[in-house]
Amino acid sequence: MPGGSGADATPQRLDGDAASAGKEPRTARGRKTLRAILDAAAVEFGEKGFHEGSISGITRRAGVALGSFYTYFDSKDDVFRALVRDMSEQVREHVAPALKDAPGQIAAEKAALLAFIRFARTHKEIYRIIDEAEFVDPESFRMHYATTADRIAKRLRAAADRGEVRDDVSEVHAWAIMGMNVFLGLRYSVWQEDVAPEAIAETVATMLARGIGVEPD
Amino acid sequence: MPGGSGADATPQRLDGDAASAGKEPRTARGRKTLRAILDAAAVEFGEKGFHEGSISGITRRAGVALGSFYTYFDSKDDVFRALVRDMSEQVREHVAPALKDAPGQIAAEKAALLAFIRFARTHKEIYRIIDEAEFVDPESFRMHYATTADRIAKRLRAAADRGEVRDDVSEVHAWAIMGMNVFLGLRYSVWQEDVAPEAIAETVATMLARGIGVEPD
Repeated sequence: MPGGSGADATPQRLDGDAASAGKEPRTARGRKTLRAILDAAAVEFGEKGFHEGSISGITRRAGVALGSFYTYFDSKDDVFRALVRDMSEQVREHVAPALKDAPGQIAAEKAALLAFIRFARTHKEIYRIIDEAEFVDPESFRMHYATTADRIAKRLRAAADRGEVRDDVSEVHAWAIMGMNVFLGLRYSVWQEDVAPEAIAETVATMLARGIGVEPD
Repeated sequence: MPGGSGADATPQRLDGDAASAGKEPRTARGRKTLRAILDAAAVEFGEKGFHEGSISGITRRAGVALGSFYTYFDSKDDVFRALVRDMSEQVREHVAPALKDAPGQIAAEKAALLAFIRFARTHKEIYRIIDEAEFVDPESFRMHYATTADRIAKRLRAAADRGEVRDDVSEVHAWAIMGMNVFLGLRYSVWQEDVAPEAIAETVATMLARGIGVEPD
């Protein structure tokens, strides 16, 4: 499953980084072709899965020649690996502006979840692709969640230092928040869009702010 | 990934239900053989994955003849499907006693998470198997999470009626709690056992009780 909302506001990575080693595009046109290949790979692997998906399926969907694929990637494994990292980045980049503009950390987590639920509704394939990475490319799978949780932990820590959340926030909270977001996206973005994203985000924000207990501590 | 801690205290299902249709064991000895096959299948698929795993690998690990396998199962797909449901039940049965004895619902969720983290440390293969079900047996994958979340939602609702948690608890809370538990198990049971289960459960219970916000409502 994808990473919930561990975005921050660091600069966007260039698409060129996605190519196989030594095959980075050096022109705007090259970067555009690489982008088209990655987008086509998302559709191909999202629909067919890794094993049934093919390089020719990707190039057909992208409308590029087979040679163009090998200009940027060495193999199907390579484009899948690049795709997992690209999708991980896409989530981060999509959620970052929401986080940045929020007035306080609970509001930031709420905005991040809202942005993620919306993103996942228009990119449902991200779940299948990142989930399949556990089997096809375990290192990317692990890196995706480890870096996402690490970003959440860092922003919680910074928020605690600003006095916006409890001072004892930790890595455990970061993994808990990531897990919530991932499963809420699975249920309310991928499976069925029967609850408004705003209502989901509001519910979670209230839970994060004061819990579900009946007595204040 | 497995189901977090959506256990309750309903009676245990008989192992006999796990066999292919019409192949349910009718003797204690048959149930024991079926149990041995399911346990061996957990090790086989946990180590090798579904595609590399084999029926002969399962029977060898179980110490039973190939014919015994076909006494209870029609195919590799069938035993995998039975295994996913069996593991889903095992989590539920392992966590149920903890839930039942807790003094209040926050304490119950804490005990459930603690039991689940401990269970996952000794059954790490459950993650790989349930995650792979998304691709090998999507119906079981979906049923596992849907029924787990449903159980959590029902017990939260009952707790709200008893005045133990906020009255507005909903399915969204259930999915959030399940997601937390699944990812905490992935990080602190499967990946690295570097935090005591008690500390994880305590952190989450405090978050559930009063949130991470600094100002009480």
